[in-house]
Amino acid sequence: MLSKKVLLDSHGEDSSYFVGLQMYQKNPYDHVHNPSGIIQMGLAENQLSMDLLESWLAKNSDVTGLKENGGSIFKELALFQDYHGLPSFKKALAEFMEEVRGRRVTLDPTKIVLTAGSTSANETLMFCLAESGDVFLIPTPYYPGYDRDLKWRTGVEIVPIQCSSSNHFRITKCAIEEAYKQAQSLNLNVKGVLITNPSNPLGTTMTHEEINIIIDFCLDKLIHIVSDEIFSATVFSSPNFISVLEALHKRNLEDSIVNNLVHVVYSLSKDLGLSGFRVGMIYSNNEKVISAATKMSSFGLISSQTQHLVSNIIGDKKFMKYYMKENIKRLKKRHEMLVSKLKRIGIKCLKSNAGLFCWVDMRHLLSSKTFEAEIELWNKILFVTKLNISPGSSCHCNEPGWFRICFANVSEDMLNVSMQRLKAFMETSCHDDVCNARRIRVS
Amino acid sequence: MLSKKVLLDSHGEDSSYFVGLQMYQKNPYDHVHNPSGIIQMGLAENQLSMDLLESWLAKNSDVTGLKENGGSIFKELALFQDYHGLPSFKKALAEFMEEVRGRRVTLDPTKIVLTAGSTSANETLMFCLAESGDVFLIPTPYYPGYDRDLKWRTGVEIVPIQCSSSNHFRITKCAIEEAYKQAQSLNLNVKGVLITNPSNPLGTTMTHEEINIIIDFCLDKLIHIVSDEIFSATVFSSPNFISVLEALHKRNLEDSIVNNLVHVVYSLSKDLGLSGFRVGMIYSNNEKVISAATKMSSFGLISSQTQHLVSNIIGDKKFMKYYMKENIKRLKKRHEMLVSKLKRIGIKCLKSNAGLFCWVDMRHLLSSKTFEAEIELWNKILFVTKLNISPGSSCHCNEPGWFRICFANVSEDMLNVSMQRLKAFMETSCHDDVCNARRIRVS
Repeated sequence: MLSKKVLLDSHGEDSSYFVGLQMYQKNPYDHVHNPSGIIQMGLAENQLSMDLLESWLAKNSDVTGLKENGGSIFKELALFQDYHGLPSFKKALAEFMEEVRGRRVTLDPTKIVLTAGSTSANETLMFCLAESGDVFLIPTPYYPGYDRDLKWRTGVEIVPIQCSSSNHFRITKCAIEEAYKQAQSLNLNVKGVLITNPSNPLGTTMTHEEINIIIDFCLDKLIHIVSDEIFSATVFSSPNFISVLEALHKRNLEDSIVNNLVHVVYSLSKDLGLSGFRVGMIYSNNEKVISAATKMSSFGLISSQTQHLVSNIIGDKKFMKYYMKENIKRLKKRHEMLVSKLKRIGIKCLKSNAGLFCWVDMRHLLSSKTFEAEIELWNKILFVTKLNISPGSSCHCNEPGWFRICFANVSEDMLNVSMQRLKAFMETSCHDDVCNARRIRVS
Repeated sequence: MLSKKVLLDSHGEDSSYFVGLQMYQKNPYDHVHNPSGIIQMGLAENQLSMDLLESWLAKNSDVTGLKENGGSIFKELALFQDYHGLPSFKKALAEFMEEVRGRRVTLDPTKIVLTAGSTSANETLMFCLAESGDVFLIPTPYYPGYDRDLKWRTGVEIVPIQCSSSNHFRITKCAIEEAYKQAQSLNLNVKGVLITNPSNPLGTTMTHEEINIIIDFCLDKLIHIVSDEIFSATVFSSPNFISVLEALHKRNLEDSIVNNLVHVVYSLSKDLGLSGFRVGMIYSNNEKVISAATKMSSFGLISSQTQHLVSNIIGDKKFMKYYMKENIKRLKKRHEMLVSKLKRIGIKCLKSNAGLFCWVDMRHLLSSKTFEAEIELWNKILFVTKLNISPGSSCHCNEPGWFRICFANVSEDMLNVSMQRLKAFMETSCHDDVCNARRIRVS
């Protein structure tokens, strides 16, 4: 008597990504009360600069108390359910995004559609751009949640663009064409390419060349580009972040048809660590998409209380300048800490410059070059070592042995404990030849 | 290159309900700055008790400032994105709903799924209970937004259960069976009945008899009941509000199969006037529905900041008791004011005991007994008299001449101005015989 969505469980919660999150919930590490619990390194959460936001709040009790010029603005906010959002909020968001893009692009607040997080933004775009059964191409490895966000309720399909470690998982023209052909051979209608820039789980920013390959391809096929840029303010090393909007601008494509085919997804969950506040958005030049997505935002409006608070935080430009600088400094330090600690125990990471995670090469720890061996290793790390990390297969990586390890949701102490555990694991639990060889080399 | 949802504009924004709201936005009344603007009486908003909530906020700055026991809980909340919601919030919600139901039912907080408003709750239920092309039966007249909420993105169809003024728009067994047969004759698969209790736009609570007719019908056909109870705390006169959950309990049906087929939708937008905060929910006894709907709530989570605030407001039982009593007193007074003023100018209302609106009989003002005449009258009232009210046809009423007039979103002064305008309109603009006859009788 229920829908297939419910009965077939096509939500994707059986993915190891979600299973790991659930396992953590059941036995979370606490250095005093549960020192043998699971350490959560599977969650791309930014906890490093919470104290800065807390200080801001302490100094701005009028904002949190919904007071303005001595009077209460509670009534006005409590009743505000216009799906166009608070104009002041969209203005502040546009300016913040311009700042993150090094002021190399100009954004128009009226082209912003507010959504309850990027989860909703991505689904909304699928409802606007595709029919059930249509396809979006996505470079691998990609965020495990896309299977839910893009496909579950819309019926849209994903065909992966297979990227490989041989060129550091960079997107090539050949790989996109291959994916497009594959979709065609399955008689599927390709409606667009979705990219995540900076990449989750790679932690890398896309090059101008990569972005241009995608723009050219979509221009040739007349299909959409959805650019998920929710990690854009986490870039802690060069090269700079280049938004698809900047690439269009640089090529003077703003008056061409492709301008109407480009849609950016953004949120404050990662850059500001406000995942609980559900602040997401779509930026599009396509008027019809803006209009329809705005109407669809009725299904996931941002609380007006939160719009008001966040509008004031990001509207405080002096504070935000300080926050951005400090946040990036902390991310860089933490990233270096994880990379060097892993290196010390014989584990390498893909070179990265952004994000809240490393893309970690554990191929040498596999008992065989298979995804079964990857899940076997993941199980050991989760249940024996008690670390929740995400196996590459959950990110649809086509090479077994890669894992995503998050570094910004734990304390330095927890990071140390996790690395001690991983070291101990490698010394005791790796029984295959490769592993032994590695241990001998490292010790 | 866009989806049919975007291109065919099936959102329903061309309905007179939405057009009226847009017209108001363009020329809103203000007694000083725009005294000839449109008065908004098409919005079911509860502004009558905002001062009570404002007083509560003024006394609870620790709550709004995200402080607890002297420390900040900002970090914890900012990161909280568990789609199960804050346990304290769901507990407070369950207790509040029990209170509204006169403590005649017991609610389990774990059966609550939080959603960004009832808009999202209703859509989520459709995704869980039906496939594209399946049907829900809904008694007329019904809330114009359902066409968007239930149908637009899900592909679900609505077949109306035709209710009529001859029995005060009460639901009959015959009317439901008629609708069911109609759906069958169209080869459509009926998945459930959706009721709004108290009714929007009627402003009436459903009788035990009506609810039992629906329960029996759904038990017989093994189809779902969705009971939208978002106006449950606006009942200002007898008879009491009876939730479908209470009716099930009274008939000892809690162990029968129908218990798994009943799903309640609720929100705080109407009862507490917090429409901007986007606090909605589903209450269901069906574990599979709870599980799937919880996962779907990722697309429209309630901001954790707002969960925290509202949890504290409704958790303050002494305050809530006072609020509920005072709010109902004010609604009752305002309702009586509108009814008596309309009566004085010769317009009758359906007898009602709940809601934020009256269901107004203007059949005698129509130039003919047609929907064209209804829209003609509505246009005059909107563009000449400058009152935005909602024509019955936008609520799918099958008898021309009924209108919904909202009374809780305007001040007493605005209500007076609106009635003066309506009086003047009737004295100058009604040219048909019936209208003249009415004017003679009234004056």
